[in-house]
Amino acid sequence: MSDKRDASERFRRGREALQAIMGEGQIDRLDAAYAEVAPDIVEFLVSFAFGDLYARPALKPRDRQLATIAALTALGTAQPQLRSHIKAGLAAGLTREEIVEVLMQMAVYAGFPAALNGLAAAKEVFAEAAKG
Amino acid sequence: MSDKRDASERFRRGREALQAIMGEGQIDRLDAAYAEVAPDIVEFLVSFAFGDLYARPALKPRDRQLATIAALTALGTAQPQLRSHIKAGLAAGLTREEIVEVLMQMAVYAGFPAALNGLAAAKEVFAEAAKG
Amino acid sequence: MSDKRDASERFRRGREALQAIMGEGQIDRLDAAYAEVAPDIVEFLVSFAFGDLYARPALKPRDRQLATIAALTALGTAQPQLRSHIKAGLAAGLTREEIVEVLMQMAVYAGFPAALNGLAAAKEVFAEAAKG
Amino acid sequence: MSDKRDASERFRRGREALQAIMGEGQIDRLDAAYAEVAPDIVEFLVSFAFGDLYARPALKPRDRQLATIAALTALGTAQPQLRSHIKAGLAAGLTREEIVEVLMQMAVYAGFPAALNGLAAAKEVFAEAAKG
Amino acid sequence: MSDKRDASERFRRGREALQAIMGEGQIDRLDAAYAEVAPDIVEFLVSFAFGDLYARPALKPRDRQLATIAALTALGTAQPQLRSHIKAGLAAGLTREEIVEVLMQMAVYAGFPAALNGLAAAKEVFAEAAKG
Amino acid sequence: MSDKRDASERFRRGREALQAIMGEGQIDRLDAAYAEVAPDIVEFLVSFAFGDLYARPALKPRDRQLATIAALTALGTAQPQLRSHIKAGLAAGLTREEIVEVLMQMAVYAGFPAALNGLAAAKEVFAEAAKG
Repeated sequence: MSDKRDASERFRRGREALQAIMGEGQIDRLDAAYAEVAPDIVEFLVSFAFGDLYARPALKPRDRQLATIAALTALGTAQPQLRSHIKAGLAAGLTREEIVEVLMQMAVYAGFPAALNGLAAAKEVFAEAAKG
Repeated sequence: MSDKRDASERFRRGREALQAIMGEGQIDRLDAAYAEVAPDIVEFLVSFAFGDLYARPALKPRDRQLATIAALTALGTAQPQLRSHIKAGLAAGLTREEIVEVLMQMAVYAGFPAALNGLAAAKEVFAEAAKG
Repeated sequence: MSDKRDASERFRRGREALQAIMGEGQIDRLDAAYAEVAPDIVEFLVSFAFGDLYARPALKPRDRQLATIAALTALGTAQPQLRSHIKAGLAAGLTREEIVEVLMQMAVYAGFPAALNGLAAAKEVFAEAAKG
Repeated sequence: MSDKRDASERFRRGREALQAIMGEGQIDRLDAAYAEVAPDIVEFLVSFAFGDLYARPALKPRDRQLATIAALTALGTAQPQLRSHIKAGLAAGLTREEIVEVLMQMAVYAGFPAALNGLAAAKEVFAEAAKG
Repeated sequence: MSDKRDASERFRRGREALQAIMGEGQIDRLDAAYAEVAPDIVEFLVSFAFGDLYARPALKPRDRQLATIAALTALGTAQPQLRSHIKAGLAAGLTREEIVEVLMQMAVYAGFPAALNGLAAAKEVFAEAAKG
Repeated sequence: MSDKRDASERFRRGREALQAIMGEGQIDRLDAAYAEVAPDIVEFLVSFAFGDLYARPALKPRDRQLATIAALTALGTAQPQLRSHIKAGLAAGLTREEIVEVLMQMAVYAGFPAALNGLAAAKEVFAEAAKG
């Protein structure tokens, strides 16, 4: 995107964290989706969520994904983001079995529909991953 | 409570898991709170959540607490249960720093008010723990 | 409150429905709570919810309370209103056993914390009712 | 699915309750959707929700569906499950008029968008039912 | 629809408010979507939301849309309604920049996924508007 | 708090925006509440929400408060933050009548309980303001 954001230390740190978590293409996908309508949202997301927060050593990357998968499943309002974080969870070292287990556990805290819809998201992500 | 539930393998397994996670007195606290109004809810909770689910080895106890703390913070509708699970998280080996970090991370996925209210719950739990 | 709202057929019909459901004093309690800050909200609530909707014969009063108790428990963001509707449910002919059962059922659809917090509300209402 | 779950009294009781509520094919549909990704979630759902809870006589089947329809409409995060329970409500003896009325009533407790999206789900289910 | 609702002063006032906000065709679109399944919901929506509330001068039309856009984005359960209100916001004089800014602001109060999904809705509405 | 955050341009800009919106003492109140349990959350909130976002000219301060009041009322999970933003709304030039109107409007989008609980928060804030 802009030169301005590339000059920011927070953005560069966030982009690196994001690429480590979600792969090289993720920034481009975010830009393709949002940069036209809201040029600054990707910078805010990358700089704050990934540059400020995820870059902190207080929690291991796989723990961050575990927590995010749990939260998005419980909320039930963020299916596209849940899929991205299930993918990121696999990349961060969570096993499929662990991801499925945390999704099932959400039945206790947010009800069975939340858990089932989370499992449907996982099924899609696992199927894509199997294709390559 | 009833002899009937004590005869159930699932309940016994769940009670053990619950005591390992939340201490010896937790069943009595749950019975004191709910057994009069809904004699069977404690059995359902203990047998299903702790006997069926938590007893499975697919996820480590500290990971289960991490996921639950994240979910309850994001939902924002279960402060008493969030406090119990922050306490359980400490007992399961999560450090205060890890718990605080996951609460802060929820600002990204459920907004700052959810994170701040989660941190207020943690502050209370940590203060109680300090008193003994 | 105002003469104006008393002149409205919808308000009069709603007030009657509300009194049948929640007792003679409920309008006064609502006025005491909200009329100063928002003089028209009580009229909107009474005329729309009770005058337009509850007055329709398509659903029996006890069914309306059953549905509302389920919904407010699942949402988990309306404890004062949940207590009022548990009280109204008793008055509309729901038994305590039925109310407790529907609250427990919410564990399946909205999670155990939602069900437990609903049961805590019911316990309070039942205790008050026992006092007279 | 597995022989193990068929040996469980709770599962057998739950499967019967589920078939009575949602028809013969529902277990197969659930297995087709979830058994590959999470082999045990269907057993948990059937044994706990239908074997433990729905099988209790404290609430009539049509009342359970009424409550679930209300809750899922208010939550607004479980459209596939809402459609299943509208179908189950018809099978349990709720009239279309009663289902529509409870969906409309949710406008009071969860807002008009929740009610409208619930009505859109009902419209789909009713249209399918008309086709046979 | 019915002659009855046309005879109501509240409905006529609401229809006018709605047409001013969402264009001439909006009542017809609502009737097409809901009148078959729930003949009275459109009257309730138009008479209460637009006839009673929106017609009040206490808040400017563009402020009402701003508030509604914020609320629906934060809730995350009403994408069709969010799109309608983004369209209505443009018609009421909100600029694209203002709408995007309020959607971005929701990241602070309801999390980034809520904001991103709101921005995706805005992108669709803006693209349609560009086509004519 | 720390010298480090004072050295940040974003934090300084955010602190100024926050003080303009919520008064001189707000940073101290936030530090008193959260700095012990989570030393960095106040910096994140101030730098991101107020330094990055609120400082942008794309939306007037009173419009930002209007949107936030609407969103927090609809969510229903952030009463302490709702009170702060009602206070901030008054300071930003919203009249009591406008604030009450937007709270009432939330009945349409998030249900009457959300609106009533929002009005209860406003009543408290207005009463405090009257005392001095």
